[in-house]
Amino acid sequence: MTVKTALETFSAIQAKIDALDHAGGILYYDGSTVAPPASTEHRGETLGYLSELGYNLATSKETCDTVDYLLAHEDELTAEQKRNVKLFNKDREYMQSIPLEKYTAFQMLQNKASAVWHEAKQKKDYAMFAPYLQQLIDTSIEFAHYYKPDKYHYDVMLDSKETGLDVKQCDEFFDTVKSGIVPLIKKVLAKKTIDDSFLFGSFPTADQRKITDAIIDFEKLDPQRSVCGETEHPFTTNFSTEDVRITTHYYEDGFVSSMYSVAHEGGHALYELGINPAYNKTSLSGGVSMGIHECQSRFFENIICRSKAFCDFILPKLKEIFPEQLKGVTTDMYYRAINKAAPSLIRTEADELTYPLHILIRYEIEKAIMAGEVTVDELPALWNAKYKEYLGVDVPDDTRGILQDMHWSEAMFGYFPSYALGSAYGAQILSVMKKTIDVNGDIAKGDVSNISAWLHDRIWQYGSLYDPKELFENAVGAPFDPHYFIDYLTEKYTEIYNL
Amino acid sequence: MTVKTALETFSAIQAKIDALDHAGGILYYDGSTVAPPASTEHRGETLGYLSELGYNLATSKETCDTVDYLLAHEDELTAEQKRNVKLFNKDREYMQSIPLEKYTAFQMLQNKASAVWHEAKQKKDYAMFAPYLQQLIDTSIEFAHYYKPDKYHYDVMLDSKETGLDVKQCDEFFDTVKSGIVPLIKKVLAKKTIDDSFLFGSFPTADQRKITDAIIDFEKLDPQRSVCGETEHPFTTNFSTEDVRITTHYYEDGFVSSMYSVAHEGGHALYELGINPAYNKTSLSGGVSMGIHECQSRFFENIICRSKAFCDFILPKLKEIFPEQLKGVTTDMYYRAINKAAPSLIRTEADELTYPLHILIRYEIEKAIMAGEVTVDELPALWNAKYKEYLGVDVPDDTRGILQDMHWSEAMFGYFPSYALGSAYGAQILSVMKKTIDVNGDIAKGDVSNISAWLHDRIWQYGSLYDPKELFENAVGAPFDPHYFIDYLTEKYTEIYNL
Repeated sequence: MTVKTALETFSAIQAKIDALDHAGGILYYDGSTVAPPASTEHRGETLGYLSELGYNLATSKETCDTVDYLLAHEDELTAEQKRNVKLFNKDREYMQSIPLEKYTAFQMLQNKASAVWHEAKQKKDYAMFAPYLQQLIDTSIEFAHYYKPDKYHYDVMLDSKETGLDVKQCDEFFDTVKSGIVPLIKKVLAKKTIDDSFLFGSFPTADQRKITDAIIDFEKLDPQRSVCGETEHPFTTNFSTEDVRITTHYYEDGFVSSMYSVAHEGGHALYELGINPAYNKTSLSGGVSMGIHECQSRFFENIICRSKAFCDFILPKLKEIFPEQLKGVTTDMYYRAINKAAPSLIRTEADELTYPLHILIRYEIEKAIMAGEVTVDELPALWNAKYKEYLGVDVPDDTRGILQDMHWSEAMFGYFPSYALGSAYGAQILSVMKKTIDVNGDIAKGDVSNISAWLHDRIWQYGSLYDPKELFENAVGAPFDPHYFIDYLTEKYTEIYNL
Repeated sequence: MTVKTALETFSAIQAKIDALDHAGGILYYDGSTVAPPASTEHRGETLGYLSELGYNLATSKETCDTVDYLLAHEDELTAEQKRNVKLFNKDREYMQSIPLEKYTAFQMLQNKASAVWHEAKQKKDYAMFAPYLQQLIDTSIEFAHYYKPDKYHYDVMLDSKETGLDVKQCDEFFDTVKSGIVPLIKKVLAKKTIDDSFLFGSFPTADQRKITDAIIDFEKLDPQRSVCGETEHPFTTNFSTEDVRITTHYYEDGFVSSMYSVAHEGGHALYELGINPAYNKTSLSGGVSMGIHECQSRFFENIICRSKAFCDFILPKLKEIFPEQLKGVTTDMYYRAINKAAPSLIRTEADELTYPLHILIRYEIEKAIMAGEVTVDELPALWNAKYKEYLGVDVPDDTRGILQDMHWSEAMFGYFPSYALGSAYGAQILSVMKKTIDVNGDIAKGDVSNISAWLHDRIWQYGSLYDPKELFENAVGAPFDPHYFIDYLTEKYTEIYNL
């Protein structure tokens, strides 16, 4: 073996694993968007077999020998090659730590649990989902122990979503955020409530699709390389820089939900579409972490699309689509309405100010689950109690409570904190970006080219080349500081509510 | 090895091949329905790798040993097991006859050619498709030679679509059909033309989707196990009896095209949904031949949905959806309009009477291609000349000419005759069915349960258990006789046109 032949072998192995991931990903997307309900079991079996093939490829003797050889010769590799091998090896070590039959069984469990969650959410029936959730938790803990027997399993999960993150850092972050925003929320709630009634009414799906098109056009998502589907819970998925899918969900009683879902998922998609295409089929492909990813999505959703400048730009278009419903609405009315801060039930519909509390609730519940302090049967009561405590709202049913998010049905434990982290990253990015770009001026003109170029140059193009901490610090030229987020919210809501 | 262990091994191998076929099939469906344009190349690579895995599985030493053992012990197998092994072995022998790299390259070629055909059709640019068509033809001939070096390659292709079919039989069949319908068409064209102008105008897609729902409801396609997507060219695809997909294409200037596409594809889907679910993941799954398949689809499209009884049933529903456009239209007017016989350009839009000539043209062109009597560059001229000769129409562009069908872009040479065969099978089935079922009475009530039960009992449930000839003869209790088809058309058009 030489470094050259080893790199060739490695590249061929990565291409095969990519093909299996691609096939599995399309099966998943198809299952979430258009597949008939009875297809679930068969899809699970196929996904199970594909994951078995992927496991065998990633852990074969040829793969191990090749990767070991490259690791032993890392001085002869470029920085990109070195990082690619190291990230691949991390995945290999993870897989090798888990017995094959458990690994594939888990793929099938996730497929099944996801289908059961869909049904349970529709039927407001947490009990039917609970046994699957139990298995997902047990297996996730079991796998974390296999992989890192010496580390606390929830730390392993947090680290897998955001390299370096652990419970201690999360606690500190949320403490800072909480101390900044809880008093702010109190002040806001003491003020007169904002009228946002015109956002609700009758908004036919066919017309809402025109808003989707407008947002996609505004964000400049390339239609050659991306599409928008419809699902119960919006998400983004990517198969290469040539194929990135977003989804949304239309509710006919209001257009804001889908509109801001598209804005959000569009941010994820821009990140994926902007990665160096040379990274396709390598471990450098894809966004580096959930926190950096949620930073992009929430930057577009909130910092851009809930700004006053964007309201100036978009309201005339909305009025073209819904002339009756939005008659007499001014930019100021619209801006205040879509930023109305109020305690609410649904995370994805929450305003920027109360949103971190929705995340905090999930983080605290995950912590309790992972510490064994709460049983699966007790979770709805705990959920409802925390919504009462932090947001003062009564949860009427589990569909609007613990069943609202898909994440746990896919064993995405440790994911939620990245939403709050991402929001906070975004505020710090904005403060730096504003030094060289007329952010609001550009947005008001419907021109995101400078903003996207900034993000592309400093973040998107690198894919997984750098750890999130290094990537972020390079981008903003300073360590992460959540106070930017508190300052951003304070300034924005002080102005809106005249505090 | 014992028969019991061999069967277990065989079953496990079939399950794995099924998983790969399932993944490949979903990738294809996704590519045809929702994938962004730039995804083509990546999908081709993934399909190539999946087909390589399938090839290796189907031709591995373990597979060969197992299949050989079971063939040597066929006396100990049930009839179903024996047929399953034999059909599987046929596929294995086909694959083994072709070198792996050519086999996978062909999968990738088909994926690419399909995408190029889509673009060429949109751009009316046959020249961009021609080099791919040349490769598809060359490779199909090469593969037929590999597989059956002693047989004429077009016979091999015809046989692969309809077991036992060859050029000689096809010629005889088309001669019979031609001698029956050409004089009939002449008589019809001498009569006053039927007014079908009310079928054209403005029919928004959103409303046409309601017709789709009505047809699906009429045919009783199970929504748990089937869905309808949208594609350039309608098709049906099946992944198991729990997941059968149909597609349609909406044209806003008329509703008949999509409506009858759905009726047609629905017939395919009913066949697949009706197969014994125990055959999933075996070589007994799926309809046995293209002829039997097109028989089901064209039975529902034409014999049922272009009958007067169906017009009685559906017209009130159509009027609910399009009250303005169909104002004053009577059942008789509607029945005559959707059966208006006229020479035309597009196969899928053709009436039942002239339809076989569209097929005859394609069959004669394929014969000429396969006999090396025409080059790819000469094909548009040959196509246009035959449309002039048989149907008297001038082809204005290749989009409405040689580029109209997707079949050749997927190397489905030898497929077209099955459309005419299937139509003829259907007429004979109708004559037998009518002895025990009040076919028109049931259709007028919107009740296809007896008709579907008849087809299910005699055809659908058997999947690929019997060869098409045996299946058909068992179903109707007599050999195939195309004169039933001529009689059916003569009776129908004599009445419509008062001949």
